[in-house]
Amino acid sequence: MKAPLAALLTDFGHEDHFVGVMKGVILSRAPGARLVDLCHGVAPQDVRGAALRLRASVRYFPEGTLFVCVVDPGVGSPRPILWARTQEHQFLAPDNGLLSWVGPFRRLRRVENRGLFLKPVSRTFHGRDVFAPAAAALLAGLKPSELGPEAAGMVSWPYPAPRRVAGRWRGEVLTVDRFGNAVTNLEPRHVGARRVLEACGRRFPLRTHYACVAEGRPVAVVGSSGSIELSLRGGNLSGGSRVRAGEAVHVR
Amino acid sequence: MKAPLAALLTDFGHEDHFVGVMKGVILSRAPGARLVDLCHGVAPQDVRGAALRLRASVRYFPEGTLFVCVVDPGVGSPRPILWARTQEHQFLAPDNGLLSWVGPFRRLRRVENRGLFLKPVSRTFHGRDVFAPAAAALLAGLKPSELGPEAAGMVSWPYPAPRRVAGRWRGEVLTVDRFGNAVTNLEPRHVGARRVLEACGRRFPLRTHYACVAEGRPVAVVGSSGSIELSLRGGNLSGGSRVRAGEAVHVR
Amino acid sequence: MKAPLAALLTDFGHEDHFVGVMKGVILSRAPGARLVDLCHGVAPQDVRGAALRLRASVRYFPEGTLFVCVVDPGVGSPRPILWARTQEHQFLAPDNGLLSWVGPFRRLRRVENRGLFLKPVSRTFHGRDVFAPAAAALLAGLKPSELGPEAAGMVSWPYPAPRRVAGRWRGEVLTVDRFGNAVTNLEPRHVGARRVLEACGRRFPLRTHYACVAEGRPVAVVGSSGSIELSLRGGNLSGGSRVRAGEAVHVR
Repeated sequence: MKAPLAALLTDFGHEDHFVGVMKGVILSRAPGARLVDLCHGVAPQDVRGAALRLRASVRYFPEGTLFVCVVDPGVGSPRPILWARTQEHQFLAPDNGLLSWVGPFRRLRRVENRGLFLKPVSRTFHGRDVFAPAAAALLAGLKPSELGPEAAGMVSWPYPAPRRVAGRWRGEVLTVDRFGNAVTNLEPRHVGARRVLEACGRRFPLRTHYACVAEGRPVAVVGSSGSIELSLRGGNLSGGSRVRAGEAVHVR
Repeated sequence: MKAPLAALLTDFGHEDHFVGVMKGVILSRAPGARLVDLCHGVAPQDVRGAALRLRASVRYFPEGTLFVCVVDPGVGSPRPILWARTQEHQFLAPDNGLLSWVGPFRRLRRVENRGLFLKPVSRTFHGRDVFAPAAAALLAGLKPSELGPEAAGMVSWPYPAPRRVAGRWRGEVLTVDRFGNAVTNLEPRHVGARRVLEACGRRFPLRTHYACVAEGRPVAVVGSSGSIELSLRGGNLSGGSRVRAGEAVHVR
Repeated sequence: MKAPLAALLTDFGHEDHFVGVMKGVILSRAPGARLVDLCHGVAPQDVRGAALRLRASVRYFPEGTLFVCVVDPGVGSPRPILWARTQEHQFLAPDNGLLSWVGPFRRLRRVENRGLFLKPVSRTFHGRDVFAPAAAALLAGLKPSELGPEAAGMVSWPYPAPRRVAGRWRGEVLTVDRFGNAVTNLEPRHVGARRVLEACGRRFPLRTHYACVAEGRPVAVVGSSGSIELSLRGGNLSGGSRVRAGEAVHVR
């Protein structure tokens, strides 16, 4: 039997000690836990960005993994903290939409057992004072029913779907990754026979992979999550073309 | 019995291979060691920034944790390298002030046993050639007395305390975190009945948490280390207001 | 017997979930594996930068370490993926020059056994779909012969050596690190009696360590890999002086 695994997803970045301190708390209370960084580079307070990363990631983690998700603009306010369980995984997250796209959930609880938390609980760092000790307790074998009462529901957003406008699909840029690839919500089935997309006045032919076009040329490919991504081969689309999250993408 | 734990704190960043190589050396010589990144995003050669992060972190790590701290502008010069021990933790660091705020220390030694180091010892990367093998030796069970002779003392800075000026407390910004929160050295007891602070010509009312004010409004809250932090709700104080480390903070 | 160790080297950065997902895949299939981050801050698609980091790192890792190297501008094209073995270490990497400077290799195979890969294999994220499951299989005990057929050769670049021009050595800047130190390909044996180097119109006297010159002054030292590095003491050479990779360095 392997030690339990926790995957950490935050907007804490790498400049500060925040992630390190969360790990210190977890290892103080669950010394055998294994910790993996899912991502700490979510833009500050970008709950939607965290939800998208989580959606793209959960299926690749071992069964039973506990995802500890702390992107929490409401920290210190009375917003609930949730524990949620799907068939394969479990999650700790603020009730702010972060878990919108990783359900369906079989169990849902509010994390309210203050006996588990650090004392005192600060107003600004629940990652350290609430999430980390709750995670450690679960990793050390705590029954989820001891976290707090069942929750009746949670904040949940609809996934941003393409719309049908004047007979054609119109999508949007969901996020732009480190390589300057713009991940859209369009899939191959939305694209017509001409297999061309347009965003920011620029045309992107849909091809099988980047190297199908010359260096510096625009190209669309089916990305790693099955949706279409817009790119400049060997370049960075978020530079000159200024393609950003939220930008409209048209099928031509 | 759990494997020994080392927490790494450096200014090596993430662009280069420096942190990875330190881990390679430690795992080559102490294969069972567990390694945690405390922080590698300290600004280059910012010993004070490292000392502040260490002060905010140590109490959250398991008893016995070895903190390996490499922010070392004097690398290659004859500055000593220290091993230090408090009741709960142990430390390796250059003798440059980095350990100023985590004592009191019960034992203090100079790390001088060259038989432990990599050969040759470079002039520029003691993290790899001295700190990592010394850490590995300790994690693998070396007696601290074999590191080198006892040290009579160390470079130690007074903690920057607020000053009393014309009947009121005047503090300073110690550091600005990733979220643009300015961590000050003022605590709630320094703040008078009006509960307002001022920095860079801007006023910050002291409230219980960020969400007490509207988006984009200035607010002061008690931060995670017990001192007062200045923020813009949902914004970044280091942007327009240009609040930086060292800036004066006045109690109004 | 310690669990097998994999060291990850990519250009995936820390903003996205890419590295975390690779780890999820590896731990799903090789639950006992130990993972170390060698570096994920290679500039996007900078194969040469990855090759230089790898060259500077491998000797410091435990015998048997598997280096999983994913800097892969040709992802999705028919470029091969290689498994390679030296006397001490093993490697997975695209066949694009990344392994040029860590040989000699005793064994070389093409990773082509699609039964090992995730299904379907995306066109854009072989780190997740090919490299991670191949690494997991090796870490879990797969015989390398089951990865695919032996390879006859690989893309390999000559190491950039200094040239002799008009009776003196001329080198180049290989890379600039986080501290603004410019790592060159010149070694002490290339430097004449005057012990001065010149780059970008600036002179750098060769000294034993940084602190031999005053703050802000240019200095050359023998760096951690044995080659000469150009620096400004306490400063950052890539700022005002704009020293960059590829810049000529003259011996005076």
